[in-house]
Amino acid sequence: MVNARNTTRLLSMPVLWMGVVQLCFGLLSLFLFRDRVAAAFLEPAGVMLLASLLITVATSKTDLSKVSFRDALMFATLTWIVTGLLGGFPIMLVTDVSFTDAVFESISALTTTGATILTGLDNMPKSFLLYRQFLQWMGGLGVVIFVVAVLPMLNVGGMRLLKAETPGPVKDDRLTPRIANTAHYLWFIYLLITFLCALAYYFGGMSPYDAIAHSFTTVSTGGFSTHDASMWYFQSHTLLAVSNVFMLLGAISFALHFRVLHSTTPRLYWKDEETRVFLYLVAGLTLILTFYLHQEGRYPDWEESLSFSAFHVISFITSTGYGAADLSSWPAVTAMFLVFCAYLGGCAGSTAGGNKIIRDIITFKVIRREIRQILHPQAVLSLRYQGDEVDNDIRDAVMGFMSFAAGSTLVITLMLMGTGLDFWSSFTAVAACINVLGPGFGQVGSNFQPVSDIGIWILSGAMILGRLEYFTVLALFVPAFWRY
Amino acid sequence: MVNARNTTRLLSMPVLWMGVVQLCFGLLSLFLFRDRVAAAFLEPAGVMLLASLLITVATSKTDLSKVSFRDALMFATLTWIVTGLLGGFPIMLVTDVSFTDAVFESISALTTTGATILTGLDNMPKSFLLYRQFLQWMGGLGVVIFVVAVLPMLNVGGMRLLKAETPGPVKDDRLTPRIANTAHYLWFIYLLITFLCALAYYFGGMSPYDAIAHSFTTVSTGGFSTHDASMWYFQSHTLLAVSNVFMLLGAISFALHFRVLHSTTPRLYWKDEETRVFLYLVAGLTLILTFYLHQEGRYPDWEESLSFSAFHVISFITSTGYGAADLSSWPAVTAMFLVFCAYLGGCAGSTAGGNKIIRDIITFKVIRREIRQILHPQAVLSLRYQGDEVDNDIRDAVMGFMSFAAGSTLVITLMLMGTGLDFWSSFTAVAACINVLGPGFGQVGSNFQPVSDIGIWILSGAMILGRLEYFTVLALFVPAFWRY
Ligand SMILES: [K+]
Ligand SMILES: [K+]
Repeated sequence: MVNARNTTRLLSMPVLWMGVVQLCFGLLSLFLFRDRVAAAFLEPAGVMLLASLLITVATSKTDLSKVSFRDALMFATLTWIVTGLLGGFPIMLVTDVSFTDAVFESISALTTTGATILTGLDNMPKSFLLYRQFLQWMGGLGVVIFVVAVLPMLNVGGMRLLKAETPGPVKDDRLTPRIANTAHYLWFIYLLITFLCALAYYFGGMSPYDAIAHSFTTVSTGGFSTHDASMWYFQSHTLLAVSNVFMLLGAISFALHFRVLHSTTPRLYWKDEETRVFLYLVAGLTLILTFYLHQEGRYPDWEESLSFSAFHVISFITSTGYGAADLSSWPAVTAMFLVFCAYLGGCAGSTAGGNKIIRDIITFKVIRREIRQILHPQAVLSLRYQGDEVDNDIRDAVMGFMSFAAGSTLVITLMLMGTGLDFWSSFTAVAACINVLGPGFGQVGSNFQPVSDIGIWILSGAMILGRLEYFTVLALFVPAFWRY
Repeated sequence: MVNARNTTRLLSMPVLWMGVVQLCFGLLSLFLFRDRVAAAFLEPAGVMLLASLLITVATSKTDLSKVSFRDALMFATLTWIVTGLLGGFPIMLVTDVSFTDAVFESISALTTTGATILTGLDNMPKSFLLYRQFLQWMGGLGVVIFVVAVLPMLNVGGMRLLKAETPGPVKDDRLTPRIANTAHYLWFIYLLITFLCALAYYFGGMSPYDAIAHSFTTVSTGGFSTHDASMWYFQSHTLLAVSNVFMLLGAISFALHFRVLHSTTPRLYWKDEETRVFLYLVAGLTLILTFYLHQEGRYPDWEESLSFSAFHVISFITSTGYGAADLSSWPAVTAMFLVFCAYLGGCAGSTAGGNKIIRDIITFKVIRREIRQILHPQAVLSLRYQGDEVDNDIRDAVMGFMSFAAGSTLVITLMLMGTGLDFWSSFTAVAACINVLGPGFGQVGSNFQPVSDIGIWILSGAMILGRLEYFTVLALFVPAFWRY
């Protein structure tokens, strides 16, 4: 049985956290940016801080050491829902969009999706834009802790593969110490990479404000920008290259970053099968797109084709979703190609979305083994990852994940088409949300305003579903979850 | 090592068979229909009969009892390619289409896909139209024997699940007796159902010619028609209902039909988990579509909505692909819904395409078990089909199949978009071909003429790939196939 008191007590934490964040941005607006939107942050912040205080007092006798797996599962989904709802208030107050749209924008930020219903970013208050960027950064950190600490324990989508990867000395099998331990080791790495990214952007030519704002959404592979023109606002191939490096870092396992830093052995990146395949894929897909764009004669020289190709392949495969060219002027097949990259996904244990390279590898190996099995019907063929035999339950979990991801795309696309959106827009909108990618094409090419309210709620759900790797959310919907 | 002599000897059989078929249609044209196209059949037939004679003489010392699994795999793919190429000659000679298009039409017939590059069917020679219909019927019989006798032995896509289902007393594990045995027991069932279908169509109001012609493509779930208006040429809801019954029969395992007939126990249909789920799905999907069309106010009353809904759901889920309404006037979401039905597919061991209900069931159960596993991380949860535990290797094969099917759709759609077709047309064309469904939407809504030559060859390959359940063809592309 889920303990309602435990859950409520746990939920007071994200409420408190969101209150503190909005309080800080209220103060930033008031004293640093002086952009007259402080009230939009301070009013909701006051209510949240009060509410979290009341909850804490009311549930003070809760023993949090008794938090069960089910409480944790419930907590994960509810956290993204609750912070999504609460994070929307300043968005609604500053921009006058509807509650539905504000919550979509907020969930899009916290899940590091980066799909937006806003236009005219360049003229918006600076504190508000930074708030949006910061939500992505915070969401990214939450995701890293969640995927490194929680998913391997539950073997969600086969992630038991990564259980031994948890950083730090404590290999505890209980959830609370594991989360605390992971958070303890990873927040510093996350902060460090963000800092280096901001520094690099600054030296690459961005203003300090833009450098910080974009570092937040690069490392979290979130993809929000403070400009409508996204990363091409700066018109600098140097900045695209900087962005490439840090998007890639954001899409590689943070547990692996920790081990590399701890042992000062960069070669560990290359020794990791998933990271190696990921980098090979990025290189291969970039080459394909470069050749295609070059023979289409879209850009004057090879260098430019290569720069734009690399940036977009990396932006999409890491599910960041930055743009640097008017993609709608590219042939439709390139859009489809980039969506395909987004489905491949980044590495597990990172902020990236999509199916994840580790699952692509296992799936590829399962299929390859099936083909070989046909030629040797009696043979017992092995299936190894990183040198070790992959267990049945992991294969089942991975393949279940892949099939569910494909099925969800089909079903949610069908639902969106039911709201009146055309097929191409529906499909790319769904791909943008379940892969926490961000940009869509067709009618949703510049923003998600053309989607109906029902469609917006469906997509909001899709972002949470994809971000929590489907099964975390699905577990709440089986009757067994609510029994004994 | 594949034995080239064995393969050549084996291939003389489909060449001989195709020669005989075209000879017969030449004679039909000459003496029965008197439609002046006899030469288009007799000329290629002469060449084929001569060629098969020469091959047989040249390879007369071949010992066919030494046919290996690899020879058989090679034979399966080559048979569909060779008969596809040869079957195209009369099409090219009668209609003046290009060789590329004629081969597409021929492969489309033999794989029971039913996608067409022709228009103006109603004015074409009767012998030619019947030839097209008969190719589907023949292809359907070939498929039934292939899927009942060969796939379970190789566990292609997890079909070892059906190994015990082979009809007849001999449960031989060697391939040649197994194929002979299966063919021996199944051709009669296939013929019987076709005969009953033709009779029912005749009493439902079709001319004897149309009744026979449509029985060929109903039982084989092929979907070719002798009229551009397809099944709605007859404007009869009675005929739609007749068609429903026989499309369903064509999409249920012919091994099961055999057991029902042999034991005279129709209840066996209901006791079979796959058939039961299939019928439930058909009913459920029909109801959904009926309600949708009714609330859209598309038809005057519930009866008409129900009749059109049932017919289209059955036509698409069985991958027949008959049409009875101007689908392009329906909302886009219904087209997508029907494509979704086609992916679900019919039952294994039938002529239907798609992923097959048995794989849908296993996939659903794998996903359901994964969700439960999250709640009970230590428990060993069972996964049963038809009361028996499903082995690991079957689950892997099924899930590999599903992932490969989803991946192929994405990749082949991408390739078609590269030839300049738009996304909706590309996607539905690919779905129509890999699921051996037939009808596409968008630019390929009425026929496949708008597809470029390269696109046509890609789609021809996709039909064979889907018809032979992917892995049969893929096995030919691993280096191990060609070694020792
Ligand atoms: K993103
Ligand atoms: K068909």
